Amino acid sequence: MHIGMIGLGRMGANMVQRLSQGGHECVVYDVNLDAVKKLAYPGVTGAVSPEDLVAQLERPRTIWLMIPAARVDQFLTKLLPLLEDADTVIDGGNSHYHDDIRRGKEMKQRGIHYLDVGTSGGITGLQNGYCLMIGGDKAVAQQLTPIFETLAPGIDAASLTPGRQPRVSTAEQGYLYCGPHGAGHFVKMVHNGIEYGVMAAYAEGMNILHHANVGKRDHDVDAETTPLRNPEYYQYDLDLGEIAEVWRRGSVIRSWLLDLTAIAMLSDPDLKDFSGRVSDSGEGRWTLEAAIDQAVPVPVLSAALYERFSSRGDADFANKILSAMRHEFGGHTEKPIK
Amino acid sequence: MHIGMIGLGRMGANMVQRLSQGGHECVVYDVNLDAVKKLAYPGVTGAVSPEDLVAQLERPRTIWLMIPAARVDQFLTKLLPLLEDADTVIDGGNSHYHDDIRRGKEMKQRGIHYLDVGTSGGITGLQNGYCLMIGGDKAVAQQLTPIFETLAPGIDAASLTPGRQPRVSTAEQGYLYCGPHGAGHFVKMVHNGIEYGVMAAYAEGMNILHHANVGKRDHDVDAETTPLRNPEYYQYDLDLGEIAEVWRRGSVIRSWLLDLTAIAMLSDPDLKDFSGRVSDSGEGRWTLEAAIDQAVPVPVLSAALYERFSSRGDADFANKILSAMRHEFGGHTEKPIK
Amino acid sequence: MHIGMIGLGRMGANMVQRLSQGGHECVVYDVNLDAVKKLAYPGVTGAVSPEDLVAQLERPRTIWLMIPAARVDQFLTKLLPLLEDADTVIDGGNSHYHDDIRRGKEMKQRGIHYLDVGTSGGITGLQNGYCLMIGGDKAVAQQLTPIFETLAPGIDAASLTPGRQPRVSTAEQGYLYCGPHGAGHFVKMVHNGIEYGVMAAYAEGMNILHHANVGKRDHDVDAETTPLRNPEYYQYDLDLGEIAEVWRRGSVIRSWLLDLTAIAMLSDPDLKDFSGRVSDSGEGRWTLEAAIDQAVPVPVLSAALYERFSSRGDADFANKILSAMRHEFGGHTEKPIK
Amino acid sequence: MHIGMIGLGRMGANMVQRLSQGGHECVVYDVNLDAVKKLAYPGVTGAVSPEDLVAQLERPRTIWLMIPAARVDQFLTKLLPLLEDADTVIDGGNSHYHDDIRRGKEMKQRGIHYLDVGTSGGITGLQNGYCLMIGGDKAVAQQLTPIFETLAPGIDAASLTPGRQPRVSTAEQGYLYCGPHGAGHFVKMVHNGIEYGVMAAYAEGMNILHHANVGKRDHDVDAETTPLRNPEYYQYDLDLGEIAEVWRRGSVIRSWLLDLTAIAMLSDPDLKDFSGRVSDSGEGRWTLEAAIDQAVPVPVLSAALYERFSSRGDADFANKILSAMRHEFGGHTEKPIK
Repeated sequence: MHIGMIGLGRMGANMVQRLSQGGHECVVYDVNLDAVKKLAYPGVTGAVSPEDLVAQLERPRTIWLMIPAARVDQFLTKLLPLLEDADTVIDGGNSHYHDDIRRGKEMKQRGIHYLDVGTSGGITGLQNGYCLMIGGDKAVAQQLTPIFETLAPGIDAASLTPGRQPRVSTAEQGYLYCGPHGAGHFVKMVHNGIEYGVMAAYAEGMNILHHANVGKRDHDVDAETTPLRNPEYYQYDLDLGEIAEVWRRGSVIRSWLLDLTAIAMLSDPDLKDFSGRVSDSGEGRWTLEAAIDQAVPVPVLSAALYERFSSRGDADFANKILSAMRHEFGGHTEKPIK
Repeated sequence: MHIGMIGLGRMGANMVQRLSQGGHECVVYDVNLDAVKKLAYPGVTGAVSPEDLVAQLERPRTIWLMIPAARVDQFLTKLLPLLEDADTVIDGGNSHYHDDIRRGKEMKQRGIHYLDVGTSGGITGLQNGYCLMIGGDKAVAQQLTPIFETLAPGIDAASLTPGRQPRVSTAEQGYLYCGPHGAGHFVKMVHNGIEYGVMAAYAEGMNILHHANVGKRDHDVDAETTPLRNPEYYQYDLDLGEIAEVWRRGSVIRSWLLDLTAIAMLSDPDLKDFSGRVSDSGEGRWTLEAAIDQAVPVPVLSAALYERFSSRGDADFANKILSAMRHEFGGHTEKPIK
Repeated sequence: MHIGMIGLGRMGANMVQRLSQGGHECVVYDVNLDAVKKLAYPGVTGAVSPEDLVAQLERPRTIWLMIPAARVDQFLTKLLPLLEDADTVIDGGNSHYHDDIRRGKEMKQRGIHYLDVGTSGGITGLQNGYCLMIGGDKAVAQQLTPIFETLAPGIDAASLTPGRQPRVSTAEQGYLYCGPHGAGHFVKMVHNGIEYGVMAAYAEGMNILHHANVGKRDHDVDAETTPLRNPEYYQYDLDLGEIAEVWRRGSVIRSWLLDLTAIAMLSDPDLKDFSGRVSDSGEGRWTLEAAIDQAVPVPVLSAALYERFSSRGDADFANKILSAMRHEFGGHTEKPIK
Repeated sequence: MHIGMIGLGRMGANMVQRLSQGGHECVVYDVNLDAVKKLAYPGVTGAVSPEDLVAQLERPRTIWLMIPAARVDQFLTKLLPLLEDADTVIDGGNSHYHDDIRRGKEMKQRGIHYLDVGTSGGITGLQNGYCLMIGGDKAVAQQLTPIFETLAPGIDAASLTPGRQPRVSTAEQGYLYCGPHGAGHFVKMVHNGIEYGVMAAYAEGMNILHHANVGKRDHDVDAETTPLRNPEYYQYDLDLGEIAEVWRRGSVIRSWLLDLTAIAMLSDPDLKDFSGRVSDSGEGRWTLEAAIDQAVPVPVLSAALYERFSSRGDADFANKILSAMRHEFGGHTEKPIK
């Protein structure tokens, strides 16, 4: 197929490469023109402006946006006037699904098709393919089948689910039409919410293993320190990298995120390269807000997000309140931070 | 009554003063003999050693321990050989109730009575009285009624519960026989578990009020920062001290801990005197462990305790794991800590 | 003062009575005209329609709405055309503060003043007064001082905060101007978020006390039941009503919500009148959503809300997923529900 | 090697089959003698009693216990007198690691070796192999290498971790010596704690997807029901089985537990076969207790366990307290349970 790609960051550039390998012709553009020049793959042509990109594409045009969510609306005000009836715009980034619902409606009024495609896979997606969750008009989505087939990991990326008739659904290829506008980003949003929870489960467990030798250490003896009642139970010096590795084979918790943990701990077992300030990219927050609207209890997903907030110092004021109360009722003074 | 008090820290010294005001005769001892000398109240006599204290007390003796939980067992090995049949030892500190059950059994074999008395009230207990939760043999507890009546706040400390027959229960005086050995400290332990939860509820709420103006601030615009979608909703500069004060009258959440928050915020509205490193004194942990044994879900009490652990840096390694995973799958680099 | 009150439910009717006792003249209206007829207090006049109410009020008019949040906007479309320049509308109900910001702007364009007043106190507010949190234009709020003074609990409702200059702030009377449009309901929203957390802390703690005798019970012995390792630690039959009562005097966790718990447990110690299906009225959800927008960690307030969701069966599907996974990896079958 | 296996339930029987396939000779015993008769594999001999099993084994003997944790100590009092110096007992079940530390000491005094081996893999372990986490004396563990190699999944069960020198560690085979007595079960315990967290993350996320159409449903309009502010955002009818399937390929959250979810949802998309009563087998609880002792915050792992407790009705009394408080302060009546 013929497709335009706008946004050539880590994700966009890799997707162009994968599309090129799959035999598709791409016209590519980025505000950073250097990024455009770098993409020298078979079938890939650069554009110097949105106008140029639009002009180079066959009609009806298919344009895939892979740009920061915060810049999509602004960019669309530039792009939409250049498009014509039956053209299709795909937002493959991390937009909030509320925005997709709005945009879908607005574009429909202009006769332009809109798809929201949640894309998962990170930097290894180039090799492994991308898991694609698609929202919008079903017929429009179907016309893009060749593109999705190329970008997705394909059926061999996982074993056949027992009892499943093979090849009856695209889900087995790694892409799925999920529903009307916003459904793709909704499913991707929840995917990321789950991701935070899964990551936190490993991280908390590893932290327990990391502290398995606290019984060996001396502890302050003062009124502000709870004594360890049974130091004899915490005398283990565990090798966390090896434990991550052994769990990769045969354990119930084997997963790709565990594979990545094993990689990270191999080269830097104490994780000295990291300070522990953890970002979040929005989807985890929106997942909670959806759950709260629905009255669905999500204590695990919430705790996972809040740990990230706390890692950035956002609990500090609350903690000061606690210390202030303790000072008032018990005359407790804070211990100095080490 | 005639009573011995061992341990003259903040709590013990105040309790002696209150007992003296109530007309009781106290023999007092502390490893720090200066603390003994300072306690010059009517009816209060100092002792220079446990032996001296025991010698000065009328038989059967009543000895109240108000010493750190971690030192009780050690001290008892010294004290018990000095005691005789029908003497009574009271642990008014913060012992784990498991220890009470063990000690109760051991002392019974020697003919010595043992009571565990959970004591709440903090530094204002001198004036307001102490809430006392009592475990052990009921008849033994009843013999100490004059002591409990003096230490407890008394019926006027709260309004009569509607529908209640007044003066049918000592609970209205502020002391209560709860059950056999350990019951007093068990109830006190849960009291403290609740305390952590209540404190955290205020602290989290105050933290939201504290951030009510985030829409006014500039935010980083980069892939590692979630943009604030609706800054217009976060434009409030709230006076937290005044809000704590207004809530004290008529609101559903009025409480003594709120009163203390109002006091703390009056003199130091930004809580600059505190760093936010929050200690815990053990009971919150034991509360969770009891709940887990019982299969009782305690998400709020747990979250409250874990916030304290995190405030002391104990989540750091878990957070490093999260950053390491994010680096592996998305190539994300941590933002520097401000 | 002269004031119109619209909405004569539990809250509105009581507020009219309190205003009447304070010497104010009220014109009152409710869609249920029987409720209007019932309010026969000195200075209180009924109205048969919004038009009638508006006609009976002196200009500039002051109209207090005490109606369900979901009906405010609908009602305003009827009311606003009847009003004139310099009239004031007060929303004393539980509106979302986002709505206040919007309404404040809309009314300003028509020359009408708008205040949002978060009101706490429940059914005992008639006697004790209401805690009032006010948002909008400061000058407009100040003109209503006589109304707020009558509705609020007054300075004697709590002891003077030590170190505070008395009577320098209305917070001590129990009402407070918090900031521009929405600030009143924002502060009330967070108040309710805290309320959920505080309530949950008591409820979880009480649940632990309730299970303090699990060691006495027989337990299933099968692969799907975790054995209780130390039944000897759970042999207490505690009197929860008495414990609530004793904590009311001198303990760190004394509060109005604890007073209410003591009342409830006095007449129904096993709480047989309740099934445990707990509603939420929205503010707790909005509190979390604000915190999430601000990146403020609120694990305690979240857990408290999610417990309510779960009590209504909203975790059921998640739990089925867990059972399904357990069945797949371990061949575990669910135990029947008792 | 020559090995005795005691306990022929799901796990033990499969392990014997795998050992037989690996060329080992097994003497097997179970209190249920029918289970003994069923195990007719090459090299497998039945025993009619522990004495018989011990008699049939070559010295020094190696005996693997695969029996419920609650019965291990009782069984050991029978078994140990039959054993001799240099015999080895392996507990491959789910014992608490505290028990391992005690048993390790006790057996050492009798000259008997003891290993604790945490075993993960569930019912598919027969085919895939078992992940083995080993505690005890290192030299003793090394003598069992042939057994571990057969039971473990082997190096091909996962891809090589990039940067890793292949075959330098047994972790790559799927078994690992973790440390002294208890270390194996400690690591397995934390594995299960993580497992609960990971499972809950998927379950909560799936529950959000399941409720993605709540905007289509009618909702009660009353004071006890929070209205859904934006029903237009919850209009999706999602196919959860297909979503689980698509996530298996290329997504960040691909894992074995997700594979199992896809299997379960394929045959029973609404999970009608399950009621949502979720058991726990102890390790999750012990994980939390270890974390609490260490002061390591584990909000995610805790929330996961508490959801299971709640699914069994263990939050009911706490919820009744909440309803009782709401009734007292606001006159709220509970809505009937559907």
